Amino acid sequence: MAAVLPTPTILVFGTFDTKLAPLLRLHQFLLSQHPQPKILVADVSCCTAISHPIISLPYLNGTYDPLGIGPEKDNKHQPLDMTSVISHFTTQLESLYKTQQIHACISLGGSCGSSLASQAMRKALPLGVPKVIVSTMASGDTRPYLEDSDIVLIPSIVDIAGENTVLDMVLRNAAGAVNGMAWAAAAAAAGSQGSQGSQAPPEPLLPPKEKRRVAVTMFGITTPAVEEARQVLEASGCEVLIFHATGSGGRCMERLIRSGLISGVLDLTTSELVDEICGGVLSAGSTRLLGAVQMGVPQVVSTGAGDCINFGPSATLPERYRNNGRTWLIHNEAVTLVRTNKEECGKLGKLMAERLKGAKDGRLAVIVPTRGMSKIGEKTDVFYDAESDMEVVKGMREGGLEVEMRDMAINDEGFGRECAERLISMMDACEASQV
Amino acid sequence: MAAVLPTPTILVFGTFDTKLAPLLRLHQFLLSQHPQPKILVADVSCCTAISHPIISLPYLNGTYDPLGIGPEKDNKHQPLDMTSVISHFTTQLESLYKTQQIHACISLGGSCGSSLASQAMRKALPLGVPKVIVSTMASGDTRPYLEDSDIVLIPSIVDIAGENTVLDMVLRNAAGAVNGMAWAAAAAAAGSQGSQGSQAPPEPLLPPKEKRRVAVTMFGITTPAVEEARQVLEASGCEVLIFHATGSGGRCMERLIRSGLISGVLDLTTSELVDEICGGVLSAGSTRLLGAVQMGVPQVVSTGAGDCINFGPSATLPERYRNNGRTWLIHNEAVTLVRTNKEECGKLGKLMAERLKGAKDGRLAVIVPTRGMSKIGEKTDVFYDAESDMEVVKGMREGGLEVEMRDMAINDEGFGRECAERLISMMDACEASQV
Repeated sequence: MAAVLPTPTILVFGTFDTKLAPLLRLHQFLLSQHPQPKILVADVSCCTAISHPIISLPYLNGTYDPLGIGPEKDNKHQPLDMTSVISHFTTQLESLYKTQQIHACISLGGSCGSSLASQAMRKALPLGVPKVIVSTMASGDTRPYLEDSDIVLIPSIVDIAGENTVLDMVLRNAAGAVNGMAWAAAAAAAGSQGSQGSQAPPEPLLPPKEKRRVAVTMFGITTPAVEEARQVLEASGCEVLIFHATGSGGRCMERLIRSGLISGVLDLTTSELVDEICGGVLSAGSTRLLGAVQMGVPQVVSTGAGDCINFGPSATLPERYRNNGRTWLIHNEAVTLVRTNKEECGKLGKLMAERLKGAKDGRLAVIVPTRGMSKIGEKTDVFYDAESDMEVVKGMREGGLEVEMRDMAINDEGFGRECAERLISMMDACEASQV
Repeated sequence: MAAVLPTPTILVFGTFDTKLAPLLRLHQFLLSQHPQPKILVADVSCCTAISHPIISLPYLNGTYDPLGIGPEKDNKHQPLDMTSVISHFTTQLESLYKTQQIHACISLGGSCGSSLASQAMRKALPLGVPKVIVSTMASGDTRPYLEDSDIVLIPSIVDIAGENTVLDMVLRNAAGAVNGMAWAAAAAAAGSQGSQGSQAPPEPLLPPKEKRRVAVTMFGITTPAVEEARQVLEASGCEVLIFHATGSGGRCMERLIRSGLISGVLDLTTSELVDEICGGVLSAGSTRLLGAVQMGVPQVVSTGAGDCINFGPSATLPERYRNNGRTWLIHNEAVTLVRTNKEECGKLGKLMAERLKGAKDGRLAVIVPTRGMSKIGEKTDVFYDAESDMEVVKGMREGGLEVEMRDMAINDEGFGRECAERLISMMDACEASQV
């Protein structure tokens, strides 16, 4: 099998001015892999341009020379703006990938190096392309580095500097990881193209839609509705992708929608917008809810978990929510929830109307349950507040959105099913109109 | 080269009762790897014991049957205490590794599955053994999962449930990663044992100390002292491992010390103890500072960055530090520092005395700079507070510790050098006494 597989090329990059020794070791470990990959090496130094025989893509390559110093002049120049290094390198990385010169990449660094590497990888490379960063920042809050990407962080254990046996062990494992991923991806690409043995396609890496692929948003407290919907969708032959409304979940979904890989969206759990409005910890950013509209993908949207602002452990709950007569709830050790009030619910409705207003005819249905937006928002439960719930509908209508109300709670039998069936008939109609 | 390499065995484990389909897919992807590993599969279900042909290590194996139901009875029993599942599986995992039946492992899960898998991997497997978890929790706070380990989290992008093309892509990459790591580790083990081609040694994975291996603790604000010390240590032939005082850094160092892999400790930056006392975010837990004492490893200890309590972005600074006349500083976007006051400094001194009190003669020197414990604690800088600094010394002495004071700031020329030279002569003396 190995004989017919095309050999993948792995790009190693990093700030050679500060991390020369560990980058050289990483390169050595990659060279000793079996099966051996091809290797390219790029310098992304931010302070001093480095010249070294293993560097195949030097920092001041081509026309990029923001300081006008040229590679031949004294290289002890002013530190560069890191933003311009990232921007240049991202373009370069994207081009290397799209022209099939590289199939995987690996970098290493502390907080600055990890930030540089992850920004470039996130922007330049689609999901599925193997991306590894050996980082001092792997054990802690990784969201600033990963966001919605499939970057794999490998903990460096020790500082990434000099040479020592612990770092060697880490770099050896990292080289093995990226090499294994690169060969697995190469095998998959070869398989998906028959036995031609050609290189992986540039993008997207997901196979084309053989059947309808539907994205669904979920939270623990909207799971019954989603489960009901999922069964209907799968019974009708759809592939169902479930995204948790955790911020990165919504971002991942929006990214896939924009990549043209999603046939329909069942956005039952839009609570990431609540966190965006109220400063909760699970915001998915200001492009949430825009993807399907912009791509013309049929979608059914609801207000699942619109009754909750999400925070971390209760000790981290901001003062403004802790007092002031707000209702809040320790969901578990890691999650504290605050009930949205009338004002916040009104804002949620308006924001949703604003983001959804460009949807084409027949590609959007907004269906809102008026007896509770989540499992804990039903009558008799702690977040029940029908007045605030109605403010969402008011806000949507003031924003010019057509809203269908249902006299039930989101998790009541039938709600998920109706939403799924509606989406199926919208997809049918859209496909029929395109034939 | 591949022909002489022993084939590594990869353990796949997970909660088959809730994750059957993704575990089967992961197993398929591992089977299709090239070069192909050997595979073992363990079930760690917490609710329902599962029987499936691929499971080689069933849940109710051997004598483990906490509910007394036996494998032959109805398997729809009460949910098990997850703690007992973890505890049983950890023992099993450790035994599999030590008897060289497995050389790498991979699991998958949401927050519960990731927690189960990471606890077992952390406790059972030393650093260097390839450990991978495909997790919904990779983009966020990973410390509860990783702690001081080298576990590699792979973001699942979509929920880990059912089968779909996105999850397939993720699982394919994960299978490639763990396989590549397993072969790289196998090659290293074979290399380190000459050409005998035998399996990897059970533990520790770090090669034995060919030269002295010294652990040093650092922060940005103690870097000049550490750099000076490092040069002295390296010039005398030591291998230097630098650990950042980030909580996981200190934990990693303590773990290596306990594994018998460290010849000497230069604990210049003990600020993780401050965070333990004051509720900062970079505590290394209650075993920090105990390793070298318990293992009888020579150490020089100082009070670097003892002037700082560490917090995240300034918005997260607890109210009790924000007001009350405390001095605090936005270090950068991600880090906010609070100056320790007299009371806290006294506690720091006492805690250090308590943890260090069992040190053997000739294996401990405590050297404290009295003109500033960090770059920002020197005269003219914002955290300068000589009175509070002196409380650390008082606390140490009240706790019965011998303290040497130096009339300089920690980063002044000579301080790092003196500490390093002292450690070298202590290591000399210890080795001489053991001959």
